[in-house]
Amino acid sequence: MTQAPLFRRVALVGIGLIGSSLARALRRHGLAEHIVCATRTEQSAQTACALGLVDQAFTTVGPACDGADLVMLCTPVSTYADLTPHLAPMLQPGCIVSDVGSVKQLVVRDVAPLLPAGVHLVPGHPIAGTEHSGPEAGFAELFEGRWCILTPVPGTNQAAIDRITRLWQTCGSSVEIMEPAHHDKVLAITSHLPHLIAYTIVGTAVDLEDDIKAEVIKFSASGFRDFTRIAASDPVMWRDVFLNNRDAVLEMVQRLTEDLAALQRAIRWGEGDKLERLFTRTREIRRSIIEARQAYGPFPPTQTSVATPTRETDNAGD
Amino acid sequence: MTQAPLFRRVALVGIGLIGSSLARALRRHGLAEHIVCATRTEQSAQTACALGLVDQAFTTVGPACDGADLVMLCTPVSTYADLTPHLAPMLQPGCIVSDVGSVKQLVVRDVAPLLPAGVHLVPGHPIAGTEHSGPEAGFAELFEGRWCILTPVPGTNQAAIDRITRLWQTCGSSVEIMEPAHHDKVLAITSHLPHLIAYTIVGTAVDLEDDIKAEVIKFSASGFRDFTRIAASDPVMWRDVFLNNRDAVLEMVQRLTEDLAALQRAIRWGEGDKLERLFTRTREIRRSIIEARQAYGPFPPTQTSVATPTRETDNAGD
Repeated sequence: MTQAPLFRRVALVGIGLIGSSLARALRRHGLAEHIVCATRTEQSAQTACALGLVDQAFTTVGPACDGADLVMLCTPVSTYADLTPHLAPMLQPGCIVSDVGSVKQLVVRDVAPLLPAGVHLVPGHPIAGTEHSGPEAGFAELFEGRWCILTPVPGTNQAAIDRITRLWQTCGSSVEIMEPAHHDKVLAITSHLPHLIAYTIVGTAVDLEDDIKAEVIKFSASGFRDFTRIAASDPVMWRDVFLNNRDAVLEMVQRLTEDLAALQRAIRWGEGDKLERLFTRTREIRRSIIEARQAYGPFPPTQTSVATPTRETDNAGD
Repeated sequence: MTQAPLFRRVALVGIGLIGSSLARALRRHGLAEHIVCATRTEQSAQTACALGLVDQAFTTVGPACDGADLVMLCTPVSTYADLTPHLAPMLQPGCIVSDVGSVKQLVVRDVAPLLPAGVHLVPGHPIAGTEHSGPEAGFAELFEGRWCILTPVPGTNQAAIDRITRLWQTCGSSVEIMEPAHHDKVLAITSHLPHLIAYTIVGTAVDLEDDIKAEVIKFSASGFRDFTRIAASDPVMWRDVFLNNRDAVLEMVQRLTEDLAALQRAIRWGEGDKLERLFTRTREIRRSIIEARQAYGPFPPTQTSVATPTRETDNAGD
């Protein structure tokens, strides 16, 4: 390293999929002199040390944050309100508090009021994840080529925003700044609703008679399998997302329900033109996504042959 | 070739994604002496010949089927009733008629009564596809490692069933025999409902205000993108599937709607335990699918690094 690390002491609160991936990325890119974590159980503290993710692991949040110049909350968002009173007294002026949660208005509501003067809050949301959980599931490349959305309120210290921006950029992400409420609305449709629907459809299948259920698993490659991957994401994290982005999620569910009822009616009454028109419109959205380089288009057959197994990191659990 | 090909003259009616993939696979594995196709337009007939998919291409179905010992219907299922009267008079006793459609009761209803005595009907459904359409989109490996379901009615000539079984096995598929009604029920939940929901959710997003819509595309990797792939599948084919498997699809939509309403209510009333319980149950289904080798489990990080682009063949359009 020819440069000083971006942070002297990073305290990761929570060392699951995202926390442990960040620990690995911080190390790989030399972004922190010391990395410590706080985690609920002695066992995961030991795992974090054994995997070499952190220099020190604590089972209480206060000592972990003592002397940190960056505290990164990587626990389910519902824990923020309880955790913040324990860590706030340990923070020195100039310290940055950030997070990786999927809901952002809540951070402004639950965390901001409890922080001492001179501590900078820069809420963040890396749009990255897999359906796997725990410190073993993380990997340093998780954030490469992905978006990270930051939602600082107006008046936030610009140097603090810049440092968090540099952190995520060094981890390979593109950074976007957004209003917290706008973030929650956009994510309600791009992420929260798809996850809710995936959980629902897989739940519907679980309740089918046993003979059908076995075949649902057997023939899952016909569309259902994709949903099971999304519906295998961390239950506690997603419970928290839905409860804490309730209004935006419920509005999207309401819109979806209306649209589904219209489709249902078109099927019942044999309105083929209506179905075909909708299915043609949705195809165009896929093209826009491919043009925006957020998905892969068709490849010439010679390059592809049979699909090789790759880590399925692209869409679950974020 | 040390063995005679399985078929003398195969007539593919329709040369889109599935028809053209089958043509390529038939050639690669030496399964047919001659391959011809019937297609609606002069242009796709020329494409089929230019790509070397077939020995001859017709724009009318009768001459294409003349003298064939296998006629494979690869057009949207709603066309079967219109096509069959044109091809039936050309068929000799011993000829096999099969198809690749996603709905199977309809084949027994629309095709069987119109076939001459001595012609064997063996309806089939390869569980394979991509979101791309047309003769250029096909590739010979499409059926490798996939299921193909056959739904012959009781009393069907066993030798005919065996030949169609051998055809799909040689193309790399595992063959399963099933009652037509049971097929339509299983596929309603594993394939038709997921596609319907994907079309709905992408349609809901299309209707959002323009400023949100741009960001839906930008941040689609957070879950939404998977749905857009499924919702990019062939509009006419899927229109037909929903109209022709109406009862089973509507029953599954009804179940889903009830389950979604329950989830919606749990979110509105903050019933976190109920959400977490459901999300934990759905996670188990994913494990069953991984155990059944219908999906990949977690890989050790060293093998994976960044996901490489692969052809996304696994779940759309079948």
